[in-house]
Amino acid sequence: MSIDRARIQWNGWGWTAAKDTLAERDEVWTWLAAELGMPSLLATPARPLAEISLAPSRLTDALRHRFAEMLGNDRVRTDDYERAFHAYGRSYHDLLRMRLGDLSAAPDAVLFPRAASEVQSALDLCNENSIAVVPYGGGTSVVGGVTGQANGFPACVTMDLSGMGRMLNVDTVSRIAEAEAGIYGPALEKELQSKGVTLGHYPQSFEFSTLGGWIGHRGAGQNSVRYGKAENWLVAAKMATPAGMMETPAFPASAAGPRLSDLMVGSEGTLGIITEATFKVRAIPEAIDYCGYLFHDFATGVAAIREAVQTGISVAMLRLSDPEETRFYRAFGTLGKKRSAFDGFADAVLKYRNFGPGACALIAGFEDTDDAVRANRARFARIARNLGAMNLGKAQGERWRAGRFHGPYMREPMMNRAVGVDTLETATHWSNIDRLHAAVRSALNTAIERTAPRPGAKGIVMCHVSHAYTDGASLYYTMIFPRALDGEIAQWKEIKTAASNAISAHGGTISHHHGVGEDHLPWIEAEKGALSIEALRAAKRALDPKGIMNPGKLIPPTAHP
Amino acid sequence: MSIDRARIQWNGWGWTAAKDTLAERDEVWTWLAAELGMPSLLATPARPLAEISLAPSRLTDALRHRFAEMLGNDRVRTDDYERAFHAYGRSYHDLLRMRLGDLSAAPDAVLFPRAASEVQSALDLCNENSIAVVPYGGGTSVVGGVTGQANGFPACVTMDLSGMGRMLNVDTVSRIAEAEAGIYGPALEKELQSKGVTLGHYPQSFEFSTLGGWIGHRGAGQNSVRYGKAENWLVAAKMATPAGMMETPAFPASAAGPRLSDLMVGSEGTLGIITEATFKVRAIPEAIDYCGYLFHDFATGVAAIREAVQTGISVAMLRLSDPEETRFYRAFGTLGKKRSAFDGFADAVLKYRNFGPGACALIAGFEDTDDAVRANRARFARIARNLGAMNLGKAQGERWRAGRFHGPYMREPMMNRAVGVDTLETATHWSNIDRLHAAVRSALNTAIERTAPRPGAKGIVMCHVSHAYTDGASLYYTMIFPRALDGEIAQWKEIKTAASNAISAHGGTISHHHGVGEDHLPWIEAEKGALSIEALRAAKRALDPKGIMNPGKLIPPTAHP
Repeated sequence: MSIDRARIQWNGWGWTAAKDTLAERDEVWTWLAAELGMPSLLATPARPLAEISLAPSRLTDALRHRFAEMLGNDRVRTDDYERAFHAYGRSYHDLLRMRLGDLSAAPDAVLFPRAASEVQSALDLCNENSIAVVPYGGGTSVVGGVTGQANGFPACVTMDLSGMGRMLNVDTVSRIAEAEAGIYGPALEKELQSKGVTLGHYPQSFEFSTLGGWIGHRGAGQNSVRYGKAENWLVAAKMATPAGMMETPAFPASAAGPRLSDLMVGSEGTLGIITEATFKVRAIPEAIDYCGYLFHDFATGVAAIREAVQTGISVAMLRLSDPEETRFYRAFGTLGKKRSAFDGFADAVLKYRNFGPGACALIAGFEDTDDAVRANRARFARIARNLGAMNLGKAQGERWRAGRFHGPYMREPMMNRAVGVDTLETATHWSNIDRLHAAVRSALNTAIERTAPRPGAKGIVMCHVSHAYTDGASLYYTMIFPRALDGEIAQWKEIKTAASNAISAHGGTISHHHGVGEDHLPWIEAEKGALSIEALRAAKRALDPKGIMNPGKLIPPTAHP
Repeated sequence: MSIDRARIQWNGWGWTAAKDTLAERDEVWTWLAAELGMPSLLATPARPLAEISLAPSRLTDALRHRFAEMLGNDRVRTDDYERAFHAYGRSYHDLLRMRLGDLSAAPDAVLFPRAASEVQSALDLCNENSIAVVPYGGGTSVVGGVTGQANGFPACVTMDLSGMGRMLNVDTVSRIAEAEAGIYGPALEKELQSKGVTLGHYPQSFEFSTLGGWIGHRGAGQNSVRYGKAENWLVAAKMATPAGMMETPAFPASAAGPRLSDLMVGSEGTLGIITEATFKVRAIPEAIDYCGYLFHDFATGVAAIREAVQTGISVAMLRLSDPEETRFYRAFGTLGKKRSAFDGFADAVLKYRNFGPGACALIAGFEDTDDAVRANRARFARIARNLGAMNLGKAQGERWRAGRFHGPYMREPMMNRAVGVDTLETATHWSNIDRLHAAVRSALNTAIERTAPRPGAKGIVMCHVSHAYTDGASLYYTMIFPRALDGEIAQWKEIKTAASNAISAHGGTISHHHGVGEDHLPWIEAEKGALSIEALRAAKRALDPKGIMNPGKLIPPTAHP
């Protein structure tokens, strides 16, 4: 295995050994309580696994025995720890349930195949016995993509690919590489970079997520402007299905009919299990340069990003925080620190240059040859300057880079103090960004206030634009809110529904890079159209006639079964 | 209609009024005969339509009447001219049959709907009556994509979209536009450019092909490095199918499951008829600069293209001719011209700089802002210089641009003189380019010699690389050969089969941008895999349960029906 699972939290984010840097900082909780309109923030610890009893595994001994013969005894696990670990992904909704001790979605067994052929054999056995199969890479889904749902089948097994982490081939001439789907981000990049190339796919979950997962949910890395989303860098894949192994060809481009690997990207394990993938790689950039800017308002920052991508400036990332996010991180960063003379000077400069409460921070990242970084940084600086922005320099950019994977670690300290933290995202065209942003923001604020534990309590709703295209961009929301402790799941659902309805009604996609899973299922048919879903269902029937593959995710049940 | 069909040849390429500039040039035929190892080249004129009798239309009067009620009487045509015009595409194989008077593939009627709703109604009526439907844009398919095949159904109608050529929306902020699928290249660009934007999709068929056709066959324009293939610029589409109208959403990016419009790109009318499409546009380039280079050999030229695209130089086109193509165009261009003092000087320079018979010409095209063109032209010049190439200057580039759509007009003068001219193309990874090129070239030469009308006769087989990606490139072959007049179709088939087998066996795709149609059908399952084809068939069954949509193209018949 390329990662030691015992070192990862079963019911939370990341390394068990990661230090909780917030718990002891009283100034954080005092400030946050005030921000949320709460008199105080109660301690709400998670239930330990030892206190939670799981339903007995429904896998028969006979089947368990056959899986063990096939994979080896230690690769078929039915113990509480593995079943609990694999019950859910890592969304706020998932964490709520795990912390409350609801492990009703624990799979009946977890299988750890070590090769594509083992995946296929195990899948065949599941199909023969009508057992639901949940493909599992790193398990970091935040949309209910890996919930252990039997969905009417007599049992459910989770197929964990962490034993399939080999790099199979790196063709530095053609700049493509091939790897097993279970390879984790760090192992993948280490192998590639030893050959002078990189995939450049760095989602926030990078340390804990896998190649197959990135493809399966149509993910994006933080530098997607340069390196592309999964659908852009995927060249070909092998997918084990109940109907057999489906393998797509790896041509640079083809007009030989539709590209069937496009059906795999975003299929979320509902068609089969991606076992191997071929993907584009690039030379390791000679230079990496991230720097900060401050814009007077959101619209101006959006205009800068749009101009940059539409004129073809080579950027790796352009990430614009809205005024609320800009204010939050600025305030949060200064908590407990003494104001210095420099802070006073900085405030004076901002005031002099007319940066008010609407100011928006932007991080611009460049990764390329030395010459290209220099040239493109200058081109972007010119755009920003023409729009009145202030250059905040490299320190701001380096700070963002240093903390690029840390965000999720802030969630549990907050969840330990009766605070909810959730995120969601969407994308739309440039001409619709303002309208969509206003609608989602308003829906979130209203729903949070409506479901707050007491009158006057409120949330912090902040947003950033972080993935840009010539035709539009993504909007990523973070919501911090006081939990309704007597109905936390219902509260989550109400807030989620309000935001999703607003997205769906105002021209946004229900997800830009998180996927559909269980959480976005109610909105998928309205987005894609009934006939498109019918075509997808038909393809699924050809590959998975019994419907055992990751049931209850992505593809809505038929009205007339 | 956006084009006057009466001005286009029914049985050949392009404008009827286009002048045959070769027929009277004896020096061309003398030279060509010698090149092909033939003592002379016989006159082989095409049969005029008046001499050919078509089988009677199988459309019943009752149905004809219903179509007429639906579309208007003049939009339902069963006359010989329209049926003949729509019998085939414009491949060498198609022209052979038309010139021989074989109109067995003429559809029973040609319908001209004027709106998506009319397409849907007409399709519903066809479905109700189990009539095969062939979608038809500009009809320039060179792979048998629009052959009027009833394929076992009682009749076949061709649905000609030339009456649907409206631009529906241009969003210059989001850089997307929406148009009806029947819009022709020139009309599309005129509308877009009046708003300051361009699609930049200029296939050789540009003047005579349509938006829907480009999408349907997954086409590429000559400047695809900058503007992308159809699969890259398509954002969303509406497709009329026997199961109803399928409409995909137009988000800049989404993780809400597979993108179902990817199933439409390259579907060649087998799933439905694309009626409207939304696509990405770009600003009209400030500067356009095409220039020529001469490389010492093919491998060096390929290396230059690879380095340029892999380092991210902004180019619009890099087109490298192999030694045979370089020699052919050089020789052809000087036929009948007196040698000047400059020619002698040029020869001396080439000799001094060691450019021998292996020399390869390359056209490099840049389209961008003024600054970017200057910078990227210089970057490419540096790569070329480092590889020993000689800059041939702008005149060479301008000459290519001036003649970019003229190539196909050379075919009929040659076909009038017992000469065959066919083209085919493929794509593969950089690490496989040499191997594939050698195999296809050899297969073509061997097959041409084997099928030649007399011993010692041979063909001219030439190739260029014209579409480049970070992971590979396309190879485009042109074959000029002496026709076996007693078995022209069999000869075509033997040559085509030999090349396709070589492509399939040596890691090339059966088509990079021409499509599959009827001609590549025998190779499609080997390329895509049986299970992929099964998934595609399943999607087709959901959208077209009776299988009336463009039967006999793209999707191979099931072994067990």
